[in-house]
Amino acid sequence: MSVIALDLGGTKLASAVFSRDGQIRARQVDRLGGMQGPEVGALLARRVQEILSGPDGSDVEAVGVSVPGIYYARTGTVWAPNVPGWTEYPLRDELRALLPGKHVGVDSDRACSILGEVWRGSAQGCRNVIFVAVGTGIGAGILIDGSVLRGHSDVAGATGWMALDRPYRSEYAACGCFEHYASGPGIAKTARRLLAEDPAYTGPLRGKPEDALRAEDVFAAEASGDPLARRVIDEAVACWGMATANYVSLFNPELIVFGGGIFGLAARFLDRIYEEALLWAQPVSIRQVRLACSSLGPDAALYGAGRLALSTATA
Amino acid sequence: MSVIALDLGGTKLASAVFSRDGQIRARQVDRLGGMQGPEVGALLARRVQEILSGPDGSDVEAVGVSVPGIYYARTGTVWAPNVPGWTEYPLRDELRALLPGKHVGVDSDRACSILGEVWRGSAQGCRNVIFVAVGTGIGAGILIDGSVLRGHSDVAGATGWMALDRPYRSEYAACGCFEHYASGPGIAKTARRLLAEDPAYTGPLRGKPEDALRAEDVFAAEASGDPLARRVIDEAVACWGMATANYVSLFNPELIVFGGGIFGLAARFLDRIYEEALLWAQPVSIRQVRLACSSLGPDAALYGAGRLALSTATA
Repeated sequence: MSVIALDLGGTKLASAVFSRDGQIRARQVDRLGGMQGPEVGALLARRVQEILSGPDGSDVEAVGVSVPGIYYARTGTVWAPNVPGWTEYPLRDELRALLPGKHVGVDSDRACSILGEVWRGSAQGCRNVIFVAVGTGIGAGILIDGSVLRGHSDVAGATGWMALDRPYRSEYAACGCFEHYASGPGIAKTARRLLAEDPAYTGPLRGKPEDALRAEDVFAAEASGDPLARRVIDEAVACWGMATANYVSLFNPELIVFGGGIFGLAARFLDRIYEEALLWAQPVSIRQVRLACSSLGPDAALYGAGRLALSTATA
Repeated sequence: MSVIALDLGGTKLASAVFSRDGQIRARQVDRLGGMQGPEVGALLARRVQEILSGPDGSDVEAVGVSVPGIYYARTGTVWAPNVPGWTEYPLRDELRALLPGKHVGVDSDRACSILGEVWRGSAQGCRNVIFVAVGTGIGAGILIDGSVLRGHSDVAGATGWMALDRPYRSEYAACGCFEHYASGPGIAKTARRLLAEDPAYTGPLRGKPEDALRAEDVFAAEASGDPLARRVIDEAVACWGMATANYVSLFNPELIVFGGGIFGLAARFLDRIYEEALLWAQPVSIRQVRLACSSLGPDAALYGAGRLALSTATA
């Protein structure tokens, strides 16, 4: 038996065939370009059909899809803000209709990422673990006693909205307090603020046009010893540490996995994040948790889609 | 069939016999006085034996116990900071040995409170719901898809440790940031701080010796229009609102129930707590949640112990 995994992102579709034990047999990436709602659905369908009729398709029994947004399990529909027209897109039923006799599973990229890490990544063997994806936004896939936390209406894990600093400021309205400070764009925002506050600074972050400044530039400047970049990172570390403390106090997980575009870059700060969390968190629980970086990196959700497909086939 | 429920607190033991449908047939309260570890265990045993040999004992099939601390499900032991000597107290095995043929269930007061509210209180019919107990401390019982969240080592729900305000201050070390500001003693601390900052104030909170000032006094002064008490309550409401937002964004619950000694007193502020949470929380999720006060009040954990007993008998 093998399964097809699809990881739909905001700009591309990754697809792969997984063997039962989590080996990738074949993989491919398609750019979405300017595709609209049903065109994206058609691309997924085409990719699946091509694999099924190709050399790796003979023993495929199930298809799993990771979507960049929210998957509503009751209705089988998807809300994906970066795919135009996917507000209540009936992806599950569309794929089921297209694939009679195959099992179909869909879930959010948050949920798939933690499933992937548990299957073949940093969280193998864990049953209570949180995947924190830090990139353009911040979201969390939360595994409780082996099951993904969905919540009442499938919106659980919206950790970018976590309140970490009083009082409320209107800048938080668009994306949430935690995300405002500690996402990729949040780090760039902090850098711009500190640059504006420090006109005497002449370091490497001054060289760039302000609106071209990215989190990557801040990490590079910090690595070269730049003090302003250091202060920017300190702020992000403080927020990541507080968030970690809040996961620990509320969920008592055995492991927290950091992934998304920013980790990598921030992987070397895990110890400092733990030190910050140690200040804030429930003191028994924080001594029992491990922090790790994703070992699957950008493939976490793809692996998770594979694991999801396998679960639907063997349920 | 009926069950015995025991709710052990820091200063007293409440016991009751529940019918299968949640009616209380008989109830009693014992003061603990200065009892030490095994004496408290013996009191529980004596109370159970007396009920079993009395008129309500004939059809009792199970015993449920709520404990004021942490229950370690794997070992059956209890850590209860206010019961001297209960650090790894083997309560489950002690009761099982004493009660051959009866089912025995034990859990923390947090867990029992949410089970009680779901059984016979404000959360009937709910599967994703959080009980926030605000009193001397702050803790949460969290129900996810109908099951209590235990975490990796049974310490989940330690919400008093939630980080809500940067930067870290050493005052948080003893009890956590949220509890420092928004528990009963936290409210009294805020009042003392504002009194010290405002020497011109001559209102009702000035009359009391500082260390006798309690949250109850602040609520009474606020109700009579006192502006300083109003500012104290505003701070607590801000923290309760941020905490509510964080539960909503992370757990996507259908309901949050506020209980403990402070609600009651703070019940009239639920709307303001929701307004504060609305600023911070994930915008879809916050529109779907309801806030309510405990309808079982100080009996929530006792009802939960009854529900727990019933579950063990019918498992």
